[in-house]
Amino acid sequence: MPNLDSALRAIDDNFDFSVRKLLELVAIPSISGEASGGPGIARAAEWLQAELSSVGLSAEIIETKGHPVVLAQSPQTSHFKRPRLLFYGHYDVQPTGDVNQWKHPPFEPRVIEENGVHRFYGRGASDSKSQLWTFIEALRAWKTAKGDFPADIVVMLEGEEESGSPSLPEFIDAHRNDLRCDVAFICDAEMWSPTQPAITTQLKGLVHERVTIFAPNPDLHSGHYGAVAANPIRILSDILAGIHDEAGRVNIDGFYDDVSEIPNRLRLRWRELERDTAHFEEVNLSGGVTEEGYSALEAMWGRPTVDINGITGGNQGPGERSVLPGSATARLSFRLVRGQEPDKVRAGFRAYVKSKLPKGCTVEFVGAGGSSAVVLSQDSPFLAAAARGLEQEWESPTILRGTGGAIPLVQQLSEVLGAECVVIGFILPGDAIHAPDERYDTRRLLKGIRSWVRIFEEIGNP
Amino acid sequence: MPNLDSALRAIDDNFDFSVRKLLELVAIPSISGEASGGPGIARAAEWLQAELSSVGLSAEIIETKGHPVVLAQSPQTSHFKRPRLLFYGHYDVQPTGDVNQWKHPPFEPRVIEENGVHRFYGRGASDSKSQLWTFIEALRAWKTAKGDFPADIVVMLEGEEESGSPSLPEFIDAHRNDLRCDVAFICDAEMWSPTQPAITTQLKGLVHERVTIFAPNPDLHSGHYGAVAANPIRILSDILAGIHDEAGRVNIDGFYDDVSEIPNRLRLRWRELERDTAHFEEVNLSGGVTEEGYSALEAMWGRPTVDINGITGGNQGPGERSVLPGSATARLSFRLVRGQEPDKVRAGFRAYVKSKLPKGCTVEFVGAGGSSAVVLSQDSPFLAAAARGLEQEWESPTILRGTGGAIPLVQQLSEVLGAECVVIGFILPGDAIHAPDERYDTRRLLKGIRSWVRIFEEIGNP
Repeated sequence: MPNLDSALRAIDDNFDFSVRKLLELVAIPSISGEASGGPGIARAAEWLQAELSSVGLSAEIIETKGHPVVLAQSPQTSHFKRPRLLFYGHYDVQPTGDVNQWKHPPFEPRVIEENGVHRFYGRGASDSKSQLWTFIEALRAWKTAKGDFPADIVVMLEGEEESGSPSLPEFIDAHRNDLRCDVAFICDAEMWSPTQPAITTQLKGLVHERVTIFAPNPDLHSGHYGAVAANPIRILSDILAGIHDEAGRVNIDGFYDDVSEIPNRLRLRWRELERDTAHFEEVNLSGGVTEEGYSALEAMWGRPTVDINGITGGNQGPGERSVLPGSATARLSFRLVRGQEPDKVRAGFRAYVKSKLPKGCTVEFVGAGGSSAVVLSQDSPFLAAAARGLEQEWESPTILRGTGGAIPLVQQLSEVLGAECVVIGFILPGDAIHAPDERYDTRRLLKGIRSWVRIFEEIGNP
Repeated sequence: MPNLDSALRAIDDNFDFSVRKLLELVAIPSISGEASGGPGIARAAEWLQAELSSVGLSAEIIETKGHPVVLAQSPQTSHFKRPRLLFYGHYDVQPTGDVNQWKHPPFEPRVIEENGVHRFYGRGASDSKSQLWTFIEALRAWKTAKGDFPADIVVMLEGEEESGSPSLPEFIDAHRNDLRCDVAFICDAEMWSPTQPAITTQLKGLVHERVTIFAPNPDLHSGHYGAVAANPIRILSDILAGIHDEAGRVNIDGFYDDVSEIPNRLRLRWRELERDTAHFEEVNLSGGVTEEGYSALEAMWGRPTVDINGITGGNQGPGERSVLPGSATARLSFRLVRGQEPDKVRAGFRAYVKSKLPKGCTVEFVGAGGSSAVVLSQDSPFLAAAARGLEQEWESPTILRGTGGAIPLVQQLSEVLGAECVVIGFILPGDAIHAPDERYDTRRLLKGIRSWVRIFEEIGNP
């Protein structure tokens, strides 16, 4: 395997550069969900265009109604029919939240050693700048070692994944010719454990919804009217507390109507995985309520859920204030399984809230669209090649896993392009994604890059 | 009544000045509950010292551990034993909250005509700068007309009432000689209606408490862990929703143990008052839950209550964020009736929260102290004089009322100084105190000032 060996050597030789460049990218505050992130988004897109060009791809920044997509393709070659591979990643990041909750500044990453692990902290360090960097650096190494790419290549880097990808469906539709491919590698997923690679074959759907309860009055003095006038925080608390019953089931009429039960063979396989208790070590599940009758993995991967992501109402401090607020707001997300339709789930929730709304009060909902769950085929030769490549690098079998997360793109690529999708990634539960002190480590970066060249090799040797 | 007539004339003649000066005072952002209010507090204290001096009182600014008290006294006179009257007001104001919710800027008051009413808007316009200004202008007018004050006078203006008066007990204790008096007029209360004056003889106690629920983990990705890990917003919602039962009673063990029932003669009198439905016209009570078995007034004035004043947790926007937050916070206040002790009520609430806390989660409480309810004597000759004076000015009987509000000072003055307290004021439910677009009108200002000179006259003619 001279191709492979020389490419792996190129990765190892170039690794200091790979790390330094990734830290440059993490330092760019490309927050898609806040208006202040605009300049960071633009800088990150330009930075990536330059890097993809330096790898030998023809890269361009394509504007959308929202944030731009960076699209790169390998040059037309005279090669006789070789497969066309698409790589997807996203360069935007979540907002930081309260910066005071970070011990490490979110946009000043540097490698530090902690208990023998070489870590770097930063928003996007794990989700998802390290991910896209693994395949870019793998393509660079292969090209360096061999003078050509391992196949026809198209790279699509999105800038608004963390904001629900509002412009992506239109982009995919408009660029379906450029995006045509035999397989799409979606690099935005987790490993199973620090030592066990995984391919995600089952993804949940996602619906975001914001609900605001208004009292008939604006803010009042709670000393005077607390005993008698409507309090939107109290009403909202009642509504939120009523969403789940004591068994952890969702109490919204019709919520489970279209839900497919988890197939038995899948339950058996997941229960087997669950014996590996190390998987949950990074997260303490005590105090949580798992739906009765289901294991933790089954609930996370195979059962629909409702989460409250935020709540705000009345006095936010710092001092005390005797206010009976005029309104209170909650932000929720619904994670769907196969069979559930986003619009129907949203409508069911709105009907539930209205049924609980005291007379005289009003409600405002904000939210639209959403994505359905996706269950991917496990028979694809590309998936088999990827599983073999991962297994070789990590010296451990590749787990076929589910996730509670959503990648709406997978549904779009399957449906619009008819492409095979293989969802791979090298992040871990302990990376604190979407949280303060998000982190990654250089060992996974190195093995992630190496994994891709092994996958390229396996694709060439079916 | 030459004294009275000349003093009333002085008020009317000087009224443009009175309004202009009050607007100056309202324009000073003397917010006690936020650190940024410090300069405003200092300016307001100096402004008041200057005004009280110009009236002929010897006024000084006395520092405390918190915000200063402005204390003013009439000169020693050779008068043969005349009563000594104390006037209390507070010059600090509530925070503005979100300024975007104000139609009128909170610190740029000017008089505008709306449907024949001459209004001005501003934080503190009603609560409580207009209130203290009524007795200051009444003292000025009497002094102008008669060359002397109607009695020995002491004026105490506090700068941290809206922050729970943390320094006041120590101040009263340290200045008990200056503050000694035959009667303390507390000018920080409501009329019964725009045409009916009132004296408040029953006040509630007040306890503020902040509670934060912590999950065992910091922020997590809700897609991954929403189905299984603890969500502090959900736990907090359950706890808040469980505070009241469906009959509007408080579900906290022991909450009603020491509560005195409302005496029957009081219930009869309040029910009589409640026939005057105009009282509630400014506030829409639909959607509110009044404790079963009690009328609205009984619940407001005579029953203990729990209010949620604020809630915060997880994503505060603007974008959506799939976060399972590490913590969530609520701010509550408890309004107590005679018999309840602040410490015991606080302890009962904390025990209730702990009893509902899932294992693995932790809770943090912030709060201390509080005030008890006060029921004032209705037999005082000063109260009788005040009731007569009010009745003459407003040409309507003076209502003896309760309130859901708390004035902890009343308890301290009664207990430490042994002073008779008479609680009077000229604000109304429609003034939007503690809320955006707080307002007042010049008619009430005029009649408020005139009320005091009539009260002075009645005190002189028992």
